[in-house]
Amino acid sequence: MPDAQPTPDAYEPTGRTVPTRSRERASYDRSVVHAILDEEYVCHLGFIRDGAPVVLPTLYARVGDRVYVHGSTGSRPLRLAGEPDPGLAVCLTVTRVDGLVLARSAFHHSLNYRSVVIHGTAHQVTDPREKSESLDALVEAVVPGRAGDSRPANARELAATAVLRLELAEVSAKIRTGPPNDEPEDLELPYWTGVVPVARTYGTPVPADDLAPSVGLPGYIAAM
Amino acid sequence: MPDAQPTPDAYEPTGRTVPTRSRERASYDRSVVHAILDEEYVCHLGFIRDGAPVVLPTLYARVGDRVYVHGSTGSRPLRLAGEPDPGLAVCLTVTRVDGLVLARSAFHHSLNYRSVVIHGTAHQVTDPREKSESLDALVEAVVPGRAGDSRPANARELAATAVLRLELAEVSAKIRTGPPNDEPEDLELPYWTGVVPVARTYGTPVPADDLAPSVGLPGYIAAM
Repeated sequence: MPDAQPTPDAYEPTGRTVPTRSRERASYDRSVVHAILDEEYVCHLGFIRDGAPVVLPTLYARVGDRVYVHGSTGSRPLRLAGEPDPGLAVCLTVTRVDGLVLARSAFHHSLNYRSVVIHGTAHQVTDPREKSESLDALVEAVVPGRAGDSRPANARELAATAVLRLELAEVSAKIRTGPPNDEPEDLELPYWTGVVPVARTYGTPVPADDLAPSVGLPGYIAAM
Repeated sequence: MPDAQPTPDAYEPTGRTVPTRSRERASYDRSVVHAILDEEYVCHLGFIRDGAPVVLPTLYARVGDRVYVHGSTGSRPLRLAGEPDPGLAVCLTVTRVDGLVLARSAFHHSLNYRSVVIHGTAHQVTDPREKSESLDALVEAVVPGRAGDSRPANARELAATAVLRLELAEVSAKIRTGPPNDEPEDLELPYWTGVVPVARTYGTPVPADDLAPSVGLPGYIAAM
C-alpha cells in the first residue's frame, strides 16, 4: 500500500515515545525504524484484556508505513480488534539483541540491542487486496522469495485468517552499541571486559519426510 | 529464595492461561516452564500506562518460582510498581524461535518456538538480601559465572536500581515442534517443504580497548 504523499524523514516524538531514561539511545529516524523492523519478523504484541495487560509473540511484516500481524479469526487479539472498528489499542515491540556487554562492575553490565516500539490502534483489514498483499508480506518477512514459491491461500483459508493493520505513526527506535561504560575508578580491576557478539543463525534445512526427492532446495533458502 | 514447601509439578491452568487456539501446544508443567525461562534472558514486559498497553524488552532471571526484572528507579514500570504496594499488573512473555516451518501452502507456514507467558502483579523488592541475590541472578542469567567475576554493586548503585518480583503462579508455556502440517491434497505440489533451524549464537568476544593485556578471557565466556 504505497503512500502517494511524500513522507517525512522522521516520526514525530510524543509523550509516550520519548523514553524516561537513556534518551540519547532513542531514534525517530524513519530509515532507522524501518531497518530494524525489516530485519526481524517476530514481535511482541501487547493489548488489554479484561483490564489486564497481555503480551503475545507473533509474526509481523512492514509494508510502507504500516505493520501487519495475522492470526486465526478466533484468536484473542483478532477478535478484540473488531471489524474494523473501534480497533484495538496495542503496543507492538520488536527487539534484536546484538551483544552482551560485560563491564567490570555488575552494575554496568548491559546488552547491545536495537528495538522498535509502536503505539497505536490496530484495525482489521477488510479490503481483499490489502489482506492478500499483507499475507504475502508476512511470508516474505520470514523467508524472502517464499511467497511466490508456495501455494497461495484459497478462499477458505483467507476466510479463516484475520489480519490487523497498525500505522507507523507513534513509533521510536532505541539502540545501544559499543563497549561497556565502566567507572573511571574501576579501570584497574582485574576483570575481563568487552562485548560478546550475539547473532541469529540458520542451520541446515531439514526436508519434510514426505518431500519428493526430485524437489531440490531453492536458492533463496540455501542463501539464508 | 528457595521455598520450604513442596511445590506441585504443574501450574494450575486459569482462564487466561488456556489459549483460545492450539491448546495441544500449551503446557503447565513446572519443569517445562522453568527450562524455557532458564534458556533465555530477554523478556517482553507488558503493563498499562495511562490506559494503554506498553511492551518493553528487558532482562529477567528466574529464581525458584519467581522471576525478577530490574531497572533504574526512574524507569517507567519500576515507578509504576510503587513501593511495594499495590504493585503493577504485568504480563511477562519469553519467546525462543527454534525453526522456520515452510509448508507447501502459504497458509500452513509457521514457526517452531517455545514461549512462556506469565500473568500477575509485580512488586518492588525491598528486602536487601533478596535484592542483592536477584541482581546476581540477573547477571548469571546472561553469563553464568559472571556474578562472581565482576565488582558487586555498591550502596549508591543498589539505591539507583529497582527490582521487581513476579510470582510464577498464573503461567503457561506454548511449544511448537516438528515438520509442517500440509493438507493431504497439497502433498504433490512441487514446493520444497521442511524446517530451517534457527539458533542464537555467540561470536568471538571483543575485549574493550582499555582492557589490560594481562587479563585473559575467562573460561566461562570462552565456553559460551
